[in-house]
Amino acid sequence: MRFKVSQTLFFAAATLVLWTPGYSAERPGLLLSPADVEFIRQFRHESPAFSRVLEETATELDLYFETAPDVPEPVDAGGGYSHETHKRNGIAIHDAGIVYQLTGDETDARNAARLLLSYAEMYPGLGNHPQSRGSNPGRLFWQNLNESVWLTYAIQGFDAIQDTLSTAERDRVVSNLLRPMADFLSEGSPGTFDRIHNHGTWAVAAVGMTGYALDDEDYVRKALYGLTGEGDSGFIRQIDLLFSPDGYYSEGPYYQRYAMMPFLLFARSIEANDPELKIFEHREGILLKAIYACVDLSYAGLFFPLNDAIKDKGLDTVELRYGIAMAYALTGDSTLLSIAGLQSSYVLNGDGFRLARARDQGETSPFDYRSRMFRDGPEGRQGALAVLRSGDFSNEQALVLKATSQGMGHGHFDKLGLLFYDNGNEILTDYGAARFLNVEQKNGGRYLPENETWAKQTVAHNTLVVDETSHFSGRLSIAEQSHPEILFFDSTDEVQIASASMEDAYEDTSFNRTVALLDDLATDNPVMIDVLHASSSSEHQYDLPVHFNGHIVDTSHSLEPRISNLRPLGEANGYQHLWLRASTEVPAGENFSVTWLTENRFYTYTVAAQHDMEVFITELGANDPLFNLRREQALVFRVDSASSNWFVSVFEPHGEYNGSEEYTLNSAGLIEDVRFLREGASDVLGIRTGDGSQSILALSLDSDETTSHTVSLEGRPYSWNGFYAFFGEEFAEERELRD
Amino acid sequence: MRFKVSQTLFFAAATLVLWTPGYSAERPGLLLSPADVEFIRQFRHESPAFSRVLEETATELDLYFETAPDVPEPVDAGGGYSHETHKRNGIAIHDAGIVYQLTGDETDARNAARLLLSYAEMYPGLGNHPQSRGSNPGRLFWQNLNESVWLTYAIQGFDAIQDTLSTAERDRVVSNLLRPMADFLSEGSPGTFDRIHNHGTWAVAAVGMTGYALDDEDYVRKALYGLTGEGDSGFIRQIDLLFSPDGYYSEGPYYQRYAMMPFLLFARSIEANDPELKIFEHREGILLKAIYACVDLSYAGLFFPLNDAIKDKGLDTVELRYGIAMAYALTGDSTLLSIAGLQSSYVLNGDGFRLARARDQGETSPFDYRSRMFRDGPEGRQGALAVLRSGDFSNEQALVLKATSQGMGHGHFDKLGLLFYDNGNEILTDYGAARFLNVEQKNGGRYLPENETWAKQTVAHNTLVVDETSHFSGRLSIAEQSHPEILFFDSTDEVQIASASMEDAYEDTSFNRTVALLDDLATDNPVMIDVLHASSSSEHQYDLPVHFNGHIVDTSHSLEPRISNLRPLGEANGYQHLWLRASTEVPAGENFSVTWLTENRFYTYTVAAQHDMEVFITELGANDPLFNLRREQALVFRVDSASSNWFVSVFEPHGEYNGSEEYTLNSAGLIEDVRFLREGASDVLGIRTGDGSQSILALSLDSDETTSHTVSLEGRPYSWNGFYAFFGEEFAEERELRD
Repeated sequence: MRFKVSQTLFFAAATLVLWTPGYSAERPGLLLSPADVEFIRQFRHESPAFSRVLEETATELDLYFETAPDVPEPVDAGGGYSHETHKRNGIAIHDAGIVYQLTGDETDARNAARLLLSYAEMYPGLGNHPQSRGSNPGRLFWQNLNESVWLTYAIQGFDAIQDTLSTAERDRVVSNLLRPMADFLSEGSPGTFDRIHNHGTWAVAAVGMTGYALDDEDYVRKALYGLTGEGDSGFIRQIDLLFSPDGYYSEGPYYQRYAMMPFLLFARSIEANDPELKIFEHREGILLKAIYACVDLSYAGLFFPLNDAIKDKGLDTVELRYGIAMAYALTGDSTLLSIAGLQSSYVLNGDGFRLARARDQGETSPFDYRSRMFRDGPEGRQGALAVLRSGDFSNEQALVLKATSQGMGHGHFDKLGLLFYDNGNEILTDYGAARFLNVEQKNGGRYLPENETWAKQTVAHNTLVVDETSHFSGRLSIAEQSHPEILFFDSTDEVQIASASMEDAYEDTSFNRTVALLDDLATDNPVMIDVLHASSSSEHQYDLPVHFNGHIVDTSHSLEPRISNLRPLGEANGYQHLWLRASTEVPAGENFSVTWLTENRFYTYTVAAQHDMEVFITELGANDPLFNLRREQALVFRVDSASSNWFVSVFEPHGEYNGSEEYTLNSAGLIEDVRFLREGASDVLGIRTGDGSQSILALSLDSDETTSHTVSLEGRPYSWNGFYAFFGEEFAEERELRD
Repeated sequence: MRFKVSQTLFFAAATLVLWTPGYSAERPGLLLSPADVEFIRQFRHESPAFSRVLEETATELDLYFETAPDVPEPVDAGGGYSHETHKRNGIAIHDAGIVYQLTGDETDARNAARLLLSYAEMYPGLGNHPQSRGSNPGRLFWQNLNESVWLTYAIQGFDAIQDTLSTAERDRVVSNLLRPMADFLSEGSPGTFDRIHNHGTWAVAAVGMTGYALDDEDYVRKALYGLTGEGDSGFIRQIDLLFSPDGYYSEGPYYQRYAMMPFLLFARSIEANDPELKIFEHREGILLKAIYACVDLSYAGLFFPLNDAIKDKGLDTVELRYGIAMAYALTGDSTLLSIAGLQSSYVLNGDGFRLARARDQGETSPFDYRSRMFRDGPEGRQGALAVLRSGDFSNEQALVLKATSQGMGHGHFDKLGLLFYDNGNEILTDYGAARFLNVEQKNGGRYLPENETWAKQTVAHNTLVVDETSHFSGRLSIAEQSHPEILFFDSTDEVQIASASMEDAYEDTSFNRTVALLDDLATDNPVMIDVLHASSSSEHQYDLPVHFNGHIVDTSHSLEPRISNLRPLGEANGYQHLWLRASTEVPAGENFSVTWLTENRFYTYTVAAQHDMEVFITELGANDPLFNLRREQALVFRVDSASSNWFVSVFEPHGEYNGSEEYTLNSAGLIEDVRFLREGASDVLGIRTGDGSQSILALSLDSDETTSHTVSLEGRPYSWNGFYAFFGEEFAEERELRD
């Protein structure tokens, strides 16, 4: 089929009548083409890795079909037997079809056919699934989302084997299964199908791919342009609205990965069937940008767990296996081969084969991780996610400043939240989602109540909490009305810096935050600087939670520990889940610091107290009757009552603990003193290390490069133009001259 | 030197006078021989791995000696600057000497020489170290243990370069450093030197190796046979007393590894200098058995953390790198090459080269992990450690029953304690030691107070606690007077079983425990059975703690959670460290079960309550003001008041959680019911799985194979001979016939 865009609205559904076996020369016609099949069959020996995946898949299929697979009555929610069995069956139909194409083994074609026929027998009799909740019921599954996913797999399997079916068999599968399901997912579920949302993308992909496989342009048209065909919904509109110009998906990387899958599957099908749509060039190649964004939004192979996110998801997922293969096939970018090296398998199509062969032939080069800003919003005007990286590789330092829009219903109330990674580990952490995906005992595998009471709340994140309430009072409808503004972003050899402001997360308190990675301090590793400024017309309690992963080894101030009676830190908005383990008071003007050990490296977090400050050490787990939460730790820095407050923090990774070789280096940090002062409109941060060297970071928060700023320290003026200046070594030398 | 054993007592110290440079044809003469050097230089190209280690070491040395290394005044305890610097210097002397031999680069020889001369300058002026505590003061280090370790390294470096020293230089090093240090460690520290203990082994190794290097038979004699030379102390006596006939070291594997090092270094030196002692054949090859035991007492590369143990220690430690290389050189056993595959480096001597070359040439075969019993005590009569394994590889199932003697001062009060491993993880856990090795902020890197108040206490282990007191009232002197008895050990294709009894851990309560791994139940994986029987002449409170690693997903009984106020479970003996998180009551005759998720697998622990039972879910961390303890979890099963009680547990690993591929299988266990009954002198355990099949494990606790036992169940007799019988499939079939 060559689908003509201009004729979208004028096509009749008559093409089906014209379908003839002769058409099969173009089958399969979704993600795998006859040319791919020919190419793989001819050159398969050139990629042992791809061959191995193909053979393993074939072996698994033999095992799977050893006895006829069960096609049970749909009764269970996610994680339950019928749910998981149908999922596996859908994938088996897909795999069997593909393996048949690539190996020519007709047993696989028959296995796929038999399973499709079983479903064709059951499907017409299904009403809404008994476990359905809310407005998106499925039939085979508890929600129609899973049904769309199932169909994108099954339709590929069908497409790969349809030429092997008798006319009667094909009719049964088409009339009793594929069309009823595609109809149900489109006209039968308009609320999902026409929604600009990842559930909608799955629906249009399933229906659109079915359209291509059945040569039914009506399905394709609806999928591309919505049920009305007018383009205010459907796939093209989704591409335009769901990604920012930098390829960022507003729900965050975890759902970006998930959302990518139908975009990729359907786009590749469109490319094969309607190449003149130039779908991969749409919006300056936005789909490719989105694939690259997924890689950039990961650390050590796992996604930044922003918003609702299951933390074990990352680049080694089926979505990214499709994505990386597709991106490599389209661009030939050999740095993507290093990402494939993090993946445990290859997709069984032409793209996957090209990727595997290139890796097997040693063409891999390292992915170029670097500091980047990902603007949010369809036009890139709804804040941004700033990613600062130090070092060339994925497992060196990464600092993430979350200044994005809310990200729909899966968004967390964590404006200007911060994440920090080092040495292969998440160090300043984000809880992600409170959910045990597919674990039926845990609320049927769905989101847990604690996702609302804890994971989404502001205190569950590394950002400002005013008066123990969450941003936007924790209300989505309010949160969706505003977003942070990026003030500045820069990346040089010695300083990487990002700054953003949030005006209306609270009724009368605004705050801004500037974070930087400084490479040139007299320390073992780059150091993180964090200046968070809150201001209000009235007095408030300001809390800065710092969630950390590690074992405390030291604190600057002696603690008042709670050793025989633990109470929650607060009553609501997430505070009710924090046990108060210890506290201390830090007078204004002093530094408080805490050192912890994470794996084989030490970390020292130092805060300069502007006002008298309380420090709480907390542990997650209060008001958690069903053990739904992980045991994690947080510091909470609190200023009781102030109309404005600066939280100024310096965070230093240092030293080495080597348990196996029995030595320890630099278990104490090298930073000895952190001073902060506000002069005129400028902030000045001074850091002194143990060897006596001092560094200064000066911030004007004014990005105009032509404006000059001056502050005076110890009677000596420091001048700079623009947003910031870093006085490092030069300053130290100056100081020595004066000594 | 060829040391004649029979002449031990008659040698004068006159040989030193006879030392001439001509003797150097036999240098180096400790772990590296002239023949090794020749061999390595000639065939080095045949092992890229060994060459790489050698080159890396040479490069590190160049960096280390780029500026003259610091030789600071000894002031710090473990982890402090002077402590760590001296450690590094000792290793640098060793490495530089070896690299000089293997590469011929005289720069390395000069570097080692200069460092030795610096120490020769400082050492005579040192008194006792300022941080010394207790009865084993050092001079260069806070305890003489570290000084012995230092000398074993430095003497090898000296030996490798002594031919390059001028006579005056050599005199200075010998007279001002090596002899004063060896004298201090022997005659100057008799309490350590003559002690049958790993500190003693280090001392005799250091002094004995110095003797060989200086050709001083007096040192060698003292090292082999004690200060008096009569053999009631010294190396030979230590070999005889510190290892059991199965190669088990009474302190447990963590200290076995540490203790092995001086045994290995000195033994290899003895072999080179006094081969007629046949040291590696001594006691039927006990040193080799001890090396193999280290491997057997590990899981996934890490040692079972019995007694005081740092949990990140395992096979990839310098001690085992020497050990495996030595064992391979002596035996040619290619299964040891797979252990070398877990190690990140090779030792730089002939043994290391042979090991590396064999691996590089592809001669590796898998190590044969299997169920084994390691008897404890010099004559093997002080209980045993039983290791049951299922599957061929290190990362499959392992069950450890600790029925050993106390293990001296590092022993824990955990008679008949249990550990369980599965799927690469420690599942039923042991805390190990409360210590941050070399982390100065944590009590100077020494053992923490919580090692006494928690880690050693019985409740910190998976074994019986009576009346909330520890075994032997937590007193070493009492604990050393008795030990458990092994009742039975067997390993067949379908059942692996071990049984032991402990009579006098409590004044009037004895207990025995039988554990088994059953392969043939209708479950995903082998299942653990645990029958612990306590009996007394009076009524007591019986607790069985189960420390587990995982996230709770479900419990059979609804819990009474403590959601807003946590209190310790008890007052003393470790109980004061456990926060009580939730509890429930289980009536006699019911099963209580809990399911948790560890990484990608589920685990269900089921206990059949004989009496009314309380179940507590606890978390470690109460009364821990300095955050010294890790946050870990335990179940505590409690029978309040009974004169005898059976804790009968069945533990089932099951299913799969795959977050990355988004599926979950069998998140509920397959075992539905556990029944226990006592008939006459026999225990009978019945297990029913979800598919209706039943299995029975019958225990007579009578190892006499000629005695016949019979029990009657549902009117049907079951008969067997000997200690136990397992009625599996046959029984299920029988049952069906009767249905």
